Amino acid sequence: MAMCNGAIYDLLLFLLMLAFSQRFFLVDSTTDPPDIKVLKDLKNGLNLKSIVPGSCLSSRDFSLDPCDHIFNNHFTTAPIDQRSFKIQRPSSGGDLPQFRRVNSNTLTMFMDNDVEEGNLGPYADRPRVFPSMRSKAHTPLIFRILMGINVRVLLVFLLLGLGAIFYVGAKTSPIIVFVFSICIMSFLFSIYLTKWVLAKDEGPPEMVQISDAIRDGAEGFFRTQYGTISKMALLLALVILGIYLFRSTTPQQEASGIGRSTSAYITVAAFLLGAICSGIAGYVGMWVSVRANVRVSSAARRSAREALQIAVRAGGFSAMVVVGMAVIGVAILYATFYVWLGVDLPGSMKVTDLPLLLVGYGFGASFVALFAQLGGGIYTKAADVGADLVGKVEQGIPEDDPRNPAVIADLVGDNVGDCAARGADLFESIAAEIISAMILGGTMAQRCKIEDPSGFILFPLVVHSFDLVVSSVGILSIRGTRDSGSKSPIEDPMAILQKGYSITIVLAVLTFGLSTRWLLYTERAPSAWFNFALCGLVGIITAYAFVWITQYYTDYKHEPVRTLALASSTGHGTNIIAGVSLGLESTALPVLVISVAIISAFWLGHTSGLVDENGNPTGGLFGTAVATMGMLSTAAYVLTMDMFGPIADNAGGIVEMSQQPESVREITDLLDAVGNTTKATTKGFAIGSAALASFLLFSAYMDEVAAFAQEPFKQVDIAIPEVFVGGLLGSMLIFLFSAWACAAVGRTAQEVVNEVRRQFIERPGIMDYKEKPDYSRCVAIVATASLREMIKPGALAILSPIIVGLLFRILGSYTGHPLLGAKVVAAMLMFGTVSGILMALFLNTSGGAWDNAKKYIETGALGGKGSDCHKAAVTGDTVGDPFKDTAGPSLHVLIKMLATITLVMAPIFL
Amino acid sequence: MAMCNGAIYDLLLFLLMLAFSQRFFLVDSTTDPPDIKVLKDLKNGLNLKSIVPGSCLSSRDFSLDPCDHIFNNHFTTAPIDQRSFKIQRPSSGGDLPQFRRVNSNTLTMFMDNDVEEGNLGPYADRPRVFPSMRSKAHTPLIFRILMGINVRVLLVFLLLGLGAIFYVGAKTSPIIVFVFSICIMSFLFSIYLTKWVLAKDEGPPEMVQISDAIRDGAEGFFRTQYGTISKMALLLALVILGIYLFRSTTPQQEASGIGRSTSAYITVAAFLLGAICSGIAGYVGMWVSVRANVRVSSAARRSAREALQIAVRAGGFSAMVVVGMAVIGVAILYATFYVWLGVDLPGSMKVTDLPLLLVGYGFGASFVALFAQLGGGIYTKAADVGADLVGKVEQGIPEDDPRNPAVIADLVGDNVGDCAARGADLFESIAAEIISAMILGGTMAQRCKIEDPSGFILFPLVVHSFDLVVSSVGILSIRGTRDSGSKSPIEDPMAILQKGYSITIVLAVLTFGLSTRWLLYTERAPSAWFNFALCGLVGIITAYAFVWITQYYTDYKHEPVRTLALASSTGHGTNIIAGVSLGLESTALPVLVISVAIISAFWLGHTSGLVDENGNPTGGLFGTAVATMGMLSTAAYVLTMDMFGPIADNAGGIVEMSQQPESVREITDLLDAVGNTTKATTKGFAIGSAALASFLLFSAYMDEVAAFAQEPFKQVDIAIPEVFVGGLLGSMLIFLFSAWACAAVGRTAQEVVNEVRRQFIERPGIMDYKEKPDYSRCVAIVATASLREMIKPGALAILSPIIVGLLFRILGSYTGHPLLGAKVVAAMLMFGTVSGILMALFLNTSGGAWDNAKKYIETGALGGKGSDCHKAAVTGDTVGDPFKDTAGPSLHVLIKMLATITLVMAPIFL
Repeated sequence: MAMCNGAIYDLLLFLLMLAFSQRFFLVDSTTDPPDIKVLKDLKNGLNLKSIVPGSCLSSRDFSLDPCDHIFNNHFTTAPIDQRSFKIQRPSSGGDLPQFRRVNSNTLTMFMDNDVEEGNLGPYADRPRVFPSMRSKAHTPLIFRILMGINVRVLLVFLLLGLGAIFYVGAKTSPIIVFVFSICIMSFLFSIYLTKWVLAKDEGPPEMVQISDAIRDGAEGFFRTQYGTISKMALLLALVILGIYLFRSTTPQQEASGIGRSTSAYITVAAFLLGAICSGIAGYVGMWVSVRANVRVSSAARRSAREALQIAVRAGGFSAMVVVGMAVIGVAILYATFYVWLGVDLPGSMKVTDLPLLLVGYGFGASFVALFAQLGGGIYTKAADVGADLVGKVEQGIPEDDPRNPAVIADLVGDNVGDCAARGADLFESIAAEIISAMILGGTMAQRCKIEDPSGFILFPLVVHSFDLVVSSVGILSIRGTRDSGSKSPIEDPMAILQKGYSITIVLAVLTFGLSTRWLLYTERAPSAWFNFALCGLVGIITAYAFVWITQYYTDYKHEPVRTLALASSTGHGTNIIAGVSLGLESTALPVLVISVAIISAFWLGHTSGLVDENGNPTGGLFGTAVATMGMLSTAAYVLTMDMFGPIADNAGGIVEMSQQPESVREITDLLDAVGNTTKATTKGFAIGSAALASFLLFSAYMDEVAAFAQEPFKQVDIAIPEVFVGGLLGSMLIFLFSAWACAAVGRTAQEVVNEVRRQFIERPGIMDYKEKPDYSRCVAIVATASLREMIKPGALAILSPIIVGLLFRILGSYTGHPLLGAKVVAAMLMFGTVSGILMALFLNTSGGAWDNAKKYIETGALGGKGSDCHKAAVTGDTVGDPFKDTAGPSLHVLIKMLATITLVMAPIFL
Repeated sequence: MAMCNGAIYDLLLFLLMLAFSQRFFLVDSTTDPPDIKVLKDLKNGLNLKSIVPGSCLSSRDFSLDPCDHIFNNHFTTAPIDQRSFKIQRPSSGGDLPQFRRVNSNTLTMFMDNDVEEGNLGPYADRPRVFPSMRSKAHTPLIFRILMGINVRVLLVFLLLGLGAIFYVGAKTSPIIVFVFSICIMSFLFSIYLTKWVLAKDEGPPEMVQISDAIRDGAEGFFRTQYGTISKMALLLALVILGIYLFRSTTPQQEASGIGRSTSAYITVAAFLLGAICSGIAGYVGMWVSVRANVRVSSAARRSAREALQIAVRAGGFSAMVVVGMAVIGVAILYATFYVWLGVDLPGSMKVTDLPLLLVGYGFGASFVALFAQLGGGIYTKAADVGADLVGKVEQGIPEDDPRNPAVIADLVGDNVGDCAARGADLFESIAAEIISAMILGGTMAQRCKIEDPSGFILFPLVVHSFDLVVSSVGILSIRGTRDSGSKSPIEDPMAILQKGYSITIVLAVLTFGLSTRWLLYTERAPSAWFNFALCGLVGIITAYAFVWITQYYTDYKHEPVRTLALASSTGHGTNIIAGVSLGLESTALPVLVISVAIISAFWLGHTSGLVDENGNPTGGLFGTAVATMGMLSTAAYVLTMDMFGPIADNAGGIVEMSQQPESVREITDLLDAVGNTTKATTKGFAIGSAALASFLLFSAYMDEVAAFAQEPFKQVDIAIPEVFVGGLLGSMLIFLFSAWACAAVGRTAQEVVNEVRRQFIERPGIMDYKEKPDYSRCVAIVATASLREMIKPGALAILSPIIVGLLFRILGSYTGHPLLGAKVVAAMLMFGTVSGILMALFLNTSGGAWDNAKKYIETGALGGKGSDCHKAAVTGDTVGDPFKDTAGPSLHVLIKMLATITLVMAPIFL
């Protein structure tokens, strides 16, 4: 297909390769994987990781191949003390050599209490067992620096920083101080959650080894991926800087004395801060999930409820951090600019124009989120599809079976694809939504001449602060005490999570009402706050409706998935046809709900009594904004449920691979199934909020263009041919982006399939557990491919609005059509958003439905596991994988990134 | 899935069922199919068809089960004289009883020259062999009446009619006379083509029998389907009448003295005429294809070139009739209204307003085409998918194998789905495009105050008249003489067709230039005609580009399909993922081409020098219209190539089923493959013209609304929430419609799969040719199901714009928002069109690519037939079937029907 996408793409790829050549292909995979033969080779087989000198040695500090105990049954390891190990051969029962590490390159071996010391030689530099992708130090540099500093000094710095923040906040608005306090409290709460989770035991060494392999793979990929992303972000920052340095300033800016360079630095700084925060959000999501997975597995040996609680709290930790960081980031930027620019002082900027300076933050966040989601999504699904196609369909072995060479790559993928990417995704959702709502609030307050507009502007920050509070309550409401320590009958985990959600929602409604009364009360329209509270309610109901609709279409309790399962009984073809039509059909109800929500929220706002100087009602758009906030007012809890999914999935994988008893598997299977549902429903939630938010961002874009162009920009008339063409191109962008995202997964999965087939052929002993599959090679293939493949769709998404805008700007200036570029981009944005919403709904729902149709058949329906019907259902599941976990979620991000990129790039379209 | 589409749909279906209950389910399928046992049962097994008394009896007048000669090898039939047959048992060679028909219910049997006379009894009323769906007389009533009239009387009537037409035409404009003459000449030419085709021999009786079964199935389904459609059309005509009787009139109408009732009757009459013509177009397409198929099969025994020529001329016949009828229908309506309303006389209507009266014609055509395409598309693909899934995938027997019980249904489907439906589709494309171009031409001529606007208005009619001429030349250029009668090496049929196309295109460019100079020359802008000629060239180039792009993405000579085939080697899942991404990706280039075409044609028109009274350029939209006409200026030849496909497909099926030698199969296989390519490329052509035409229709809609609302209606501002919601709903409509169309095929195919599986299990002898499959049961299942399933998506398409328009009209009047309904419908139309174009491109291309990837593997690549790779490719083909032949083509029609329905229903949105 390269020929026709042709020259542009090739050129682009070439330039990118040139720019990032030194780290573009990260994995130099070992071509001759080591075989574990006999014990005297063990010394060389041991792969010491880079351990900080002086740190203590635990079972985690070395990595035997995690599956050796299964395949070779030679030995298990057990820590004796902090510096030595006993390696036992269970079959004979006798003690075997003990090792002691002396320094990072030297291994000391105690053999029958005789000390043998040997150098690891090439193995120290080139790890041959797991993970094959380690290329940098384990602990990020920043952590090592921080760890090197005295704790008291750190504390002083921290307190000083906090003091500065609060000082700036206090100079800005008491609301900002309130937001700061809540955010810091929520960070403290998240630290408590981490400590609680990490205090749980990691289970037996075989679990730890698998978990280590997963963690290493995930962290290695994350580092390389974010290395690439950060370089692209820096490049883009330079481009933005250039654009802003050469653009003209708006009259407001001139009035307030902000020059070109100030505004350029502000935008770039906001962009970089957004990008960094988004990266941290992704890292935090992955960091906790690779640590929680094994603890959930371990807890599943004791109690379902405890396992559930660990997974929820681990998810809660990253949810708190992600949401808290989005809020505090915007708040800090706002307060800093407020104080620095002397806002609201005579002769300087008005506070209502301040939010427009923050758009860079949103764009930075969505830029990083797009690539994080693309790379992670391709990684996770290529591994999954590859593993399933050969393992399940061809060989008939179960999911996560240790004999499948792609299984570790699959488990790694859950972390980088679901946890890291979803963290970044939700982060940018919230950031973009906060900023656009602040812009609209500012615009409206200015039009209505409200004396103190800060309430309207800061409202979104307060809503999300309360979100942190109520979600904390929801997370804490899921307790592990009832059956802790005993094996009582398993409760439905979904019901427990739903109960927590109900508590969160009720509290959110209350606090939302409180916030509207506090901040949106104005004497110019005494009942406006109540209308806006109703808008919030509309948003919350919309969120509920989306969750319900998604469940209806993806849960096998309901008719659609059962029909789909039935269609599998007539073959692969009818299964796919039925799934595609289910997905296409499932777009209808959400669109109806969104339509009703937009219109009713708009009219609630419109009739709120807020009028501009001519007496025209102006609150409509802000009403939609408030509804969006209402929808996102439980975002932290929803993100918790979402993060729960991949953690449970990983825990299940670890349990399966470490061959735990059936009862333990039952528990993790149950949690995994619930995780699938919560993942699907949060996708519905995410797309619903994206749909609502896009309308805000679109309005913000029009405000921005009007500000730059110094003329009203109120209409996007699709009866103009160029504007119509812009719309066509916008919709096409969505189709092409989805195509490339799916194709990337397909291509990479084919590589995995070929590799897995090759291993099964070349090592016939794998199927009888006599030979060990080479997991690392699959990990390496997937990592390399996903980094390579994420560039093309990502570049498409970023470059096409810019190119279209510039092209039509030139065409417009040539044909005497003012603002043509901005109008065409607006149409592109709108049509792209609409198509994107529909496409994402289609992809997410069909993928989820295929997955659950397969699960339904696996419960024994229609022939059960191994039947032809099941094989057809697995094909459907395979097709659904890139739909629901790569293309679909990437589209969420794309929709918002389109909006933020047009906001930031608006000056070049004029 | 019914639950959530819910109450509205159920209610609707109930009402429709109530309205058409008497003929809703047409087939009372025989539950105990007859077995051919022994010769003494033969008399009862014979199924006399309804023969008009006095007609001669040929081998076609009775139907033994067409496959008896294969399965039972009992007997073949041969006509002795016009009233008797000899039935021979080939194995023994001895003569067997002779039969003679006495009257339609009585069979006379000569047994060793002894006459035995027996009544057919129940078999006369309830045919138990093929076809099971015959329920009415074979010859349509209208034909029987005509046949009952004396030929001379008929001739006189015909001449009188012609005279009247020419008289009216002469009173209107010489251009109309020209158009009439060309159309009548093309009808004469099409009669010549029919006579030529029908003069060809029908081949051996076994071919005739199969062909008869196909024809009976197709005609039976057609009758019932069009019975249902005609009742719905009548109902809708009443609704339209009601709406127009109660609406207000436009100022123009008042000025010209046209009252409400006149305008209501005009619209309804135009609607009904459009519907009838569309029905005839469909019937003609099917009529010739069910007669040509067997003649092509027969000719394939002699020469590839002769077979090609027959198929092309048969296709050419229906193309001539379809295009000619579209043109003459509009011309007659135009001339009649012109004379009747005294247009351009003082105090009456202006000629520039006349085209607006014709919109009913376009709506009638697209209404019928929508249901024809839906019903036919579901029929053909459900049979095809069902046959393939069990036959090819499960049992491993070839396509069109006589052992497959669904094979006759599949062959019937080609005729009702591809021939009949495509005839109706192209008919409405051309009609809608002519009318919208006439409206735009009229509007522009009025704005520019051109003295004689009839050139601009009638331009589309002339373009299509020339289309008839140049396409005739193209069709005649394909000659069968070179190797007729001898078995010389087979030439590439695609090259022959392409050569004909090249001739047609070159001539079209010349005649197009001529037409622009003749009709679009005006002294107000002397060079305008040349700009418009360039617009036409843009259209022709666009058509070429679309054909090329479609070929690139669907022909296995190129990379995309080869990549897809390679993806099949890793399993069903990767095949589907690759196909979906190929389809999604293939939307990009056509969109770019269309974008360039719209903008360049618009600017060519804009700069043509035509200005309104204020000096503003006004020719832009008309430029786009001319480009559309340029694109469609070879429509008749393209339609010929399209019709060629299913005829060749059917011929291949007949050859396969009648077990002809390998060399004959080779020829029909080759023709079939070429037919697949031409079908795919004409779909690209159709969607390209739909995309261009939709923009015209949209502009016509805005003109229409402005006329009714008596205020300017120039903008559709998607920044208004309701309008944005309208856009969301429009896009959603496309997704939902596609979902229901695909699901209909999936459901029906499942029924077929279950039936075919049942037959294979219950009659194990089928696989060894020892038992005869029950073809008729599959035919009955598919026919019933497709009639049932076409209602839901069809009703959705028709009702949703009406409901949305009315709803927002009410909302608008409640909230003080004038024209809200019309604006929302406009956004719905635009977003729906954009999404529809993209979705149709996706569906058509991915379907075609899957089909050809399978064909590529069948050439021996990647393991060839029977390999796992081939099975995966067949799954893809199966999935692609409803995409490319049901949902995709239905979307073409839907796009234009949305435009025409909003045009006709515009009064109720205000």
